[in-house]
Amino acid sequence: MNSKRSGRRQFLKDGALLAGLAVGATRAARGQAPGPATPEAPPKDSRAYGERSRFAKLSRAPLEASSSPSQTPLQDLEGIITPSALHFQIGGTFPPPDIDPRQHRLMIHGLVDRPVIFTMEELKRLPSVSRVHFIECAGNTVRPVRDTVQQTHGATSCSEWTGVPLSLLLKEAGVQKGANWLLAEGAEPGMHTRSVLVEKAMDDAIIAYSQNGEPVRPEQGFPLRLVVPGWEGNIHVKWLRRIKVVDQAYMTQSETTKYTALRPDGTARWYQFELGPKSVITRPAGGQKLPGKGFYEITGLAWSGGGAITRVEVSTDGGRTWKDAQLQEPVHRIAHTRFRFAWNWDGQEAVLQSRCRDDRGGVQPSLEALSKMWGGTPKYWESHLSIHFNPIQPWRVTPEGSVQNAMFS
Amino acid sequence: MNSKRSGRRQFLKDGALLAGLAVGATRAARGQAPGPATPEAPPKDSRAYGERSRFAKLSRAPLEASSSPSQTPLQDLEGIITPSALHFQIGGTFPPPDIDPRQHRLMIHGLVDRPVIFTMEELKRLPSVSRVHFIECAGNTVRPVRDTVQQTHGATSCSEWTGVPLSLLLKEAGVQKGANWLLAEGAEPGMHTRSVLVEKAMDDAIIAYSQNGEPVRPEQGFPLRLVVPGWEGNIHVKWLRRIKVVDQAYMTQSETTKYTALRPDGTARWYQFELGPKSVITRPAGGQKLPGKGFYEITGLAWSGGGAITRVEVSTDGGRTWKDAQLQEPVHRIAHTRFRFAWNWDGQEAVLQSRCRDDRGGVQPSLEALSKMWGGTPKYWESHLSIHFNPIQPWRVTPEGSVQNAMFS
Repeated sequence: MNSKRSGRRQFLKDGALLAGLAVGATRAARGQAPGPATPEAPPKDSRAYGERSRFAKLSRAPLEASSSPSQTPLQDLEGIITPSALHFQIGGTFPPPDIDPRQHRLMIHGLVDRPVIFTMEELKRLPSVSRVHFIECAGNTVRPVRDTVQQTHGATSCSEWTGVPLSLLLKEAGVQKGANWLLAEGAEPGMHTRSVLVEKAMDDAIIAYSQNGEPVRPEQGFPLRLVVPGWEGNIHVKWLRRIKVVDQAYMTQSETTKYTALRPDGTARWYQFELGPKSVITRPAGGQKLPGKGFYEITGLAWSGGGAITRVEVSTDGGRTWKDAQLQEPVHRIAHTRFRFAWNWDGQEAVLQSRCRDDRGGVQPSLEALSKMWGGTPKYWESHLSIHFNPIQPWRVTPEGSVQNAMFS
Repeated sequence: MNSKRSGRRQFLKDGALLAGLAVGATRAARGQAPGPATPEAPPKDSRAYGERSRFAKLSRAPLEASSSPSQTPLQDLEGIITPSALHFQIGGTFPPPDIDPRQHRLMIHGLVDRPVIFTMEELKRLPSVSRVHFIECAGNTVRPVRDTVQQTHGATSCSEWTGVPLSLLLKEAGVQKGANWLLAEGAEPGMHTRSVLVEKAMDDAIIAYSQNGEPVRPEQGFPLRLVVPGWEGNIHVKWLRRIKVVDQAYMTQSETTKYTALRPDGTARWYQFELGPKSVITRPAGGQKLPGKGFYEITGLAWSGGGAITRVEVSTDGGRTWKDAQLQEPVHRIAHTRFRFAWNWDGQEAVLQSRCRDDRGGVQPSLEALSKMWGGTPKYWESHLSIHFNPIQPWRVTPEGSVQNAMFS
């Protein structure tokens, strides 16, 4: 590992990395706009690209009857990887832009010594990393009185992302003194744009071109998505085409309207990037039905924008007693973490819930603690979509085996 | 963790696990044969189940022009997870059997105290595990003179598998003294059947119902596949329906015909289960073209049936000097391990190759070492498909940037 690291530093010092790109980068600067799409389609041959069983019906589902399917079916998934076809899909535009990767460019400019434009081919030649990270919508669980875990918690998903560390591109471009923020812009018609701290970008952000081994899915930003581990989903800018290095946060339209969190006293929390420790039992969960008493494995997911999950506890008696659940290993930093807990249901009413901790000491809060900060009513939360709502989620099992959302009872 | 483990033991001791299943198991025994499939199909709505970009054309490809697409496109993949749609697909039957999971049963019988039949629903109530493991065809790379890495090495893939530890089911059934082997049988028309050591089954085998988060794909054994980590692919019996506990290896038809390895002296190696340490550079690799000198990231995969990969070295000068590559972390046991190596190509002819070690001390052999064991000609190897061919793979880069298979030159 050491010889590799020093080798990489050597290339950077020699400027070989940028030198190898110089010609391509110049070429790139001339055909910047995404051109018309060619009519070729990928093969639909199931020998070349397999299909799932017609009996496997896992689907994204809408929050309300009137809205579009957007939420990941957490109750049907196993392990920690969310299949790309089922990654939650909120924001941006649908259908997603139909971008030809041969025409796509990423520009880095602003307060840098060497503005640069990359083709996809050039980006793929650069040193890459793969990491497993969750992405969660800022508004996940702000509608806590819905029936199922897909509705209450389904705006979080987890993938193995691969791409170029943003720090590498910024170092190559040469970030100037006083440049503390980035503006990241998408290529969709709405040009969603967000401010990101340079400090975070240099730490662990990824310019991702791959999701779970294959190209990032169109709904997730094909061909390029900005992955900012642990920060709210809308900062992971899809269809990324431009990063402008600037001296301050820009207060873009999304930032001053959608992604602020208003408190009852009229003050707002802005630029609250990091998502807190959160967990939820996905089976048994709301809307499910237990066929009878006996053994069940309680399972669910825990995650934190602050680091690695270190502990998940489960209560089956409404919070009177808690026991440690087993964590699926290895536990990844800033990733869904599967937990499992053996339970023998005696057929009586039971209330199931989980709570988690991360390696920075973060603890998943109770509903009461959150209510003190944000005011107390679900109706209020539903109209303020970015409050990072991560309370402990209780599910009630009735003697008949029905499972119900017990958040407010 | 401790409280969970003792909790699980408690349930087993009380017999709660089997008790909870008793009724279902009896029901199951009456409608054992897979019934006619219902005509329902999964949704094709791309909001409910997303699709890839029409510009993303990754496909399985055939070994020869005349054969069917079967090999994973290793050269196009990133990270360590193989998308389920691109998992290599050899053996069994195509199209795969169209099994209704509501009708599917797993029977465990033979030398056990309590024969048992499980429905899918019952299996999913039991304690589960998720682990990332590769599966590799016994015959991967026995055709070493092909052009591309997809042809030479594409019969290996890696997934996050979830299911019930086979050890749990065997303990519940009560394996009798003298029962050292299992016979595992698939539900496809050919009823592929293999002998497995009870010792291995008790160690780490999984009855898997999930692959990368969603149900196992039909080509991989929907609804159940036997995963026997590190052993040759054909032992991971697809469409698993029966495990018979027996006192000796059964020498089934596959075992006495297809999956033996004949030496030039006429003796054969049978029951050679475990796959050796192996690695290959997937980019740059045969059939690719480098656009010009400058920086490239050399990347590839390493894996071993014996444990975790601990070291991958790369040579860019035909084997004269070797340097450590960087391993993607965390490294999983018996899983594809991504390696990366910074390389500045000077435009001269170069020969690239990788070699790996695992945590049991296994070392990937040279072609010369393997030739001593199996005899020396590619023609011979091609007619003996199960010899676990894992030599160091060299790729030649010509001054024009063409990359060619240099295994025999």
